[in-house]
Amino acid sequence: MAVGAVSRNPEGGPASQQAMRRQNLAVVLGTIAGQSPLSGLSRADVAGLTGLTRAAVSSLVDELIGRGALTEAETAPSGRVGRPGRALAVSDSGPAGLGLEVGVTHLGACVVDLRGEARVWRRVERANAGRPAGEVLAEVAALGAEAQAEADGLGLRVEGRVLAVPGVVPSAQPGLVEHAPNLGWHAVRPADHWPDPETVPEPENEANLGALAEYWQGGHGAETFVHVSAEAGIGAALIVDGQLFRGARGFAGELGHIPVHPDGLPCSCGSRGCLEQYAGEAAVLREAGLVGEGDPVALLAGRAGAGDRAALRALERAGRALGLALASAVNLVDPDGLVLGGAYAELADWLLPAVRAELAARVTVRPWPSEALRPSLLGRRGALLGAALVTTRQLIADPTRLPAA
Amino acid sequence: MAVGAVSRNPEGGPASQQAMRRQNLAVVLGTIAGQSPLSGLSRADVAGLTGLTRAAVSSLVDELIGRGALTEAETAPSGRVGRPGRALAVSDSGPAGLGLEVGVTHLGACVVDLRGEARVWRRVERANAGRPAGEVLAEVAALGAEAQAEADGLGLRVEGRVLAVPGVVPSAQPGLVEHAPNLGWHAVRPADHWPDPETVPEPENEANLGALAEYWQGGHGAETFVHVSAEAGIGAALIVDGQLFRGARGFAGELGHIPVHPDGLPCSCGSRGCLEQYAGEAAVLREAGLVGEGDPVALLAGRAGAGDRAALRALERAGRALGLALASAVNLVDPDGLVLGGAYAELADWLLPAVRAELAARVTVRPWPSEALRPSLLGRRGALLGAALVTTRQLIADPTRLPAA
Repeated sequence: MAVGAVSRNPEGGPASQQAMRRQNLAVVLGTIAGQSPLSGLSRADVAGLTGLTRAAVSSLVDELIGRGALTEAETAPSGRVGRPGRALAVSDSGPAGLGLEVGVTHLGACVVDLRGEARVWRRVERANAGRPAGEVLAEVAALGAEAQAEADGLGLRVEGRVLAVPGVVPSAQPGLVEHAPNLGWHAVRPADHWPDPETVPEPENEANLGALAEYWQGGHGAETFVHVSAEAGIGAALIVDGQLFRGARGFAGELGHIPVHPDGLPCSCGSRGCLEQYAGEAAVLREAGLVGEGDPVALLAGRAGAGDRAALRALERAGRALGLALASAVNLVDPDGLVLGGAYAELADWLLPAVRAELAARVTVRPWPSEALRPSLLGRRGALLGAALVTTRQLIADPTRLPAA
Repeated sequence: MAVGAVSRNPEGGPASQQAMRRQNLAVVLGTIAGQSPLSGLSRADVAGLTGLTRAAVSSLVDELIGRGALTEAETAPSGRVGRPGRALAVSDSGPAGLGLEVGVTHLGACVVDLRGEARVWRRVERANAGRPAGEVLAEVAALGAEAQAEADGLGLRVEGRVLAVPGVVPSAQPGLVEHAPNLGWHAVRPADHWPDPETVPEPENEANLGALAEYWQGGHGAETFVHVSAEAGIGAALIVDGQLFRGARGFAGELGHIPVHPDGLPCSCGSRGCLEQYAGEAAVLREAGLVGEGDPVALLAGRAGAGDRAALRALERAGRALGLALASAVNLVDPDGLVLGGAYAELADWLLPAVRAELAARVTVRPWPSEALRPSLLGRRGALLGAALVTTRQLIADPTRLPAA
């Protein structure tokens, strides 16, 4: 049986006031970050929204301005007549997050400011499958350095780095990419290959980052949802009550190897009938009679948009298989919503009808509104954006990580 | 975006000391409850284990004795020579929990003491499918009253009541059994039918209770596991980090309607190829050529044990289907373990080989040791036991719920 943890303040007596102030800094900054930039909250507004006293809010706001997290403009931009006070806004310069991405066919780097806006965005096509990890990592590091230099020129200061990878990062071993099958990586530790020890990023599974970006910026209210995306492989991630759900060891969300046709096509994983054999990129291109040159997603979308029968049939078949796998996910996990992200979002026009038909047929023991499945607005930008946002979200959750004035 | 909740103590200043004392009472009681009854902890031992001062422990222990949660014997039963002090133990009289169960073919009632021991156990066979809910509930209420009377005679005092049902209890509507298909219940509120308003139980899904019982008393270390059980239907539940995972609306764990053969047998839910059509009780009995008279699980086990080919084939087929569905669960949720509970536990000898074979073939992208799947030791007792344990676990987590001396 689990025994409750002993209740003692690990920081001793005075520290509990520090913890309270840290939390209140996060509440004030989170409140302002949660409003539209046009709302122009005054200090008094923040006091009203948070329930903190005006004096406390003023002291907290002063500290947040000192740490570069907030700005305070002379007049409120809301246009409401006679509105007193000055308008607070999350800073668009200073603290920033750097996101990096190693995909199977591209590299990426982006910088977001504390408002969550992408200010620098770089994506280059590269065939990374089977290349030495050190070579790939050196290239993405160089791309990141370029992005950071550009961000410096915009008055942004990178405070943290996260690297999106199409592989498994075990919960117990942060810093390690245990396995990235479509890259051919086994037990790769980016820190071992990074040119500058000062800028080593934390690796994270790209499906997880795509789901987090969707939660933070997808513009919908679901707190518990399954996000499924595709690049070379299929990745899913679960957001539960607003938190990433990693499973016992960090392997959760392996939707691509759910058996959808138990006696079906052999899969590279050694099993049969896995979703990836029906809805993975290679399977869809093969079924559509296409060779994956240039941007295969754009190629597929172009063909399907032009009414090409083979492309439409391939996408319909992929949608059926996705619907089967997602029906299992809905029955097991009971999410509020399902999101088609990554390349699936860009193919949603042709995938959605088949996915919705399968869900309607197979999710019958509970209400399942068809609009609970929707495409992501972030598309293939999600994972890289999520990698950059991890840092800024951490800063908003704990502004004391920012250097004091 | 989610804005952090404002940090203010809702109970005002002095209440935080009460909260601290409440938590420390739980730590002390939980520590003693977490030890073997034979270990005979002294007050000094508890201080050592919890990090609380001896003076604090003594005051907390005195209060817990006064509330009837602990006893203190004159001598330590550990047998260690020269060991000083008196031995503390969780009380085997006084506070208790009543569990009730409405199954498709039985009713049950049990009482557990604060140690988690079942002291009263009643189970009667009843064909409940299609009978008026009020009639069934009146009968289980009568059975509960008998059990409670017997518990009174043992010096036990029922402090809470939970009713296990093979149906859905939405998170947002506690007290309501929204749908129990195998009973024929729709929108049944036990409180509306209960003869005595003082003893109305809280309904809960039986699969959830079986999983909780497994977590509390199954005797294994997994904190994140999937528990699958079968009565007339198939129910699964997820324990995540030691907590029941209900999903967004309380529907999580609907393993019985995962599609295992997409174009397979029609299911009563309106879909096709659901697990229930291959591994549900009716399907297995049909495949084994048996008519469900008496105890169908014992009948099946008897036939299989005697080498009956049809029974063995039916169980092998059920095991294959279960393995397929559980492969999806493992790929999605990444549990530490899988537990076959309920009737499946009693048929494990014949199910396990096929389930393990499917898992070995289909869970390939991560390590999956075959012993991570195991039968529950609680078998068909799990749900009823879990219903009774909910109350005693709540009392241990918050001893201030017990009346003070």
